[in-house]
Amino acid sequence: MIRKIYDMLIKNQREIKNQIYNTANYLKQEIQEKIKEYWNNYTPNTQLGQLEFVAVDGGSFSKAMRIGIIYAVGAESVIGDKGGVKPLGEDGRIGIFKPGNDAQERISLLMEALELLLALKDGKLGDYVLMDGSLNKKIGKKVDIQKFSKDELNLVENVDIDSIINLKDEEKMKDLLTLTNQLLISKIIEEYDGKVLWISKTSRSRDLFDTDYPDITVFELFTEETGFSNPIVKNIASEKVSNYDKVEILKNMEYSTFYARLDKGKRVIRIDITGRIDENIAKDIIDSISGISVKGYPFPLLKAHIDVRFSKSDREKIIRMIGSRLYKNIEWWPTQFD
Amino acid sequence: MIRKIYDMLIKNQREIKNQIYNTANYLKQEIQEKIKEYWNNYTPNTQLGQLEFVAVDGGSFSKAMRIGIIYAVGAESVIGDKGGVKPLGEDGRIGIFKPGNDAQERISLLMEALELLLALKDGKLGDYVLMDGSLNKKIGKKVDIQKFSKDELNLVENVDIDSIINLKDEEKMKDLLTLTNQLLISKIIEEYDGKVLWISKTSRSRDLFDTDYPDITVFELFTEETGFSNPIVKNIASEKVSNYDKVEILKNMEYSTFYARLDKGKRVIRIDITGRIDENIAKDIIDSISGISVKGYPFPLLKAHIDVRFSKSDREKIIRMIGSRLYKNIEWWPTQFD
Repeated sequence: MIRKIYDMLIKNQREIKNQIYNTANYLKQEIQEKIKEYWNNYTPNTQLGQLEFVAVDGGSFSKAMRIGIIYAVGAESVIGDKGGVKPLGEDGRIGIFKPGNDAQERISLLMEALELLLALKDGKLGDYVLMDGSLNKKIGKKVDIQKFSKDELNLVENVDIDSIINLKDEEKMKDLLTLTNQLLISKIIEEYDGKVLWISKTSRSRDLFDTDYPDITVFELFTEETGFSNPIVKNIASEKVSNYDKVEILKNMEYSTFYARLDKGKRVIRIDITGRIDENIAKDIIDSISGISVKGYPFPLLKAHIDVRFSKSDREKIIRMIGSRLYKNIEWWPTQFD
Repeated sequence: MIRKIYDMLIKNQREIKNQIYNTANYLKQEIQEKIKEYWNNYTPNTQLGQLEFVAVDGGSFSKAMRIGIIYAVGAESVIGDKGGVKPLGEDGRIGIFKPGNDAQERISLLMEALELLLALKDGKLGDYVLMDGSLNKKIGKKVDIQKFSKDELNLVENVDIDSIINLKDEEKMKDLLTLTNQLLISKIIEEYDGKVLWISKTSRSRDLFDTDYPDITVFELFTEETGFSNPIVKNIASEKVSNYDKVEILKNMEYSTFYARLDKGKRVIRIDITGRIDENIAKDIIDSISGISVKGYPFPLLKAHIDVRFSKSDREKIIRMIGSRLYKNIEWWPTQFD
């Protein structure tokens, strides 16, 4: 860091802090009334029966080498109740993609496919199925299915992930993965419907407050107690859903969204669930997941997340075993983050 | 990392390595003739007079907090010859942007503006001016200037960076920064023209080989000696240049591009220079910068890069001094990279 930045930091520290403080204060005055209208303080009642939760999460690692992008993708399902959490199933892929602008996107679609497959397989074992991330985001983009051959559509119908990720045409690979994920989401919703909770730790949605700040940020900044926001009903935008008869259920499908804090002073999460729910169902959900939450976040989801992530030593191992001399790094170039 | 990935790694290691090997071999056979046609082995002649090099680079750090995005941006110019390198000038900004999708882009435009300003100010001191990154990328996107008021255009004309980054309208902030950078590039080219070298360590350009791989990758994989590729002449796409009389010079402007390896077995860099150059000028350039290069990269650029980067302790310091309780992190959530 150059000297000038350090001087500026010292000199402007107070000013920047004031700027943050003033923004927060202004915001608070502007929207205090609205917060009262939307937010309900509520103390979760965790003295309920023994519910079982299936939770699914995925992780990925990729590294650009000269000759292509090495990737490793994993997903895990776990089952848990108040007594503890144990792994149920796992799936993964490791391989190499040719260099291309959308390699990262394909890796993330592949990870999502593995997550959805595990949820579909193991969801029946739980009273609730917890998925990481928002429903709307998982739907992805509309795909033009006209450009697929019958054989290619069969790959989707048979959820033949391995054939899809071996396709030479990368655009097609991406679109077939997207369509497969829409198909898997449709199946999960048909099978498990209102017992699937899509849980987001972050969200950019600004449905409630007319400010520059996401709803979740407003609630985090200006509420402190456990509670939840009034559920609102939204529709999956039909222009995101492919014209494919097997995903028809997704078109304009209604789902409900609400924000919740499960532990005082902790983060706010966003919960999506298909269909229309009212405050009482929101309370039921909060009561249920509070019983298996630690510091305001459902522990089974956290456990799955921890299991699937690639640690520094995992990543080094993968590079060591596959990368060797084709690794893109160079000895004289300092990395930004050391 | 889940067990399954580890098993796959062991099981598929040979297969993935073979896949890489086969791809490389196939590629080599396909394009060996073309490489011979484009690439010239050449031993740089560094026994030349004492040339002075001005080099400029910038660095940035940003951190999302609940209330906004803290950013710190720095840029430095250095001057060097065979005897050594010393700092010339530095500039920086530190502040906070409201959350918004293009905050990262604005931070990077701001960094570029500071770099270009230093180059314009200090360029006259060098026989060559070395800039980090490709010319075409620095030009950015076309901006519709119709939407600016006269006052706003004055901010650009006066290069009033501070007023621009204090604008409330973030779209306008972004576009005014883009236009300012186009103006600064025009001035640099008017003032210093053929002594400015735009040097890229990576490049996705595929002008020469009809493969999935960037030209720079092909040369790195299949040549080993010092040398360079035949310069090709390109034009700045006029649809990238704003309809602003002061950047008119950029429209369809010709520039030359070639690849070079300055040190045997080391990385290939890409060099852009305005105007048309032939092989002899390419050799002159290689002779000149070889004299101040270490392991195939111009040392003044590396020195500037090292000075401006934000180390782990710099980043922690910034967060500690400004961030405090509004910092977005959460104690129970494991980061992917620890």
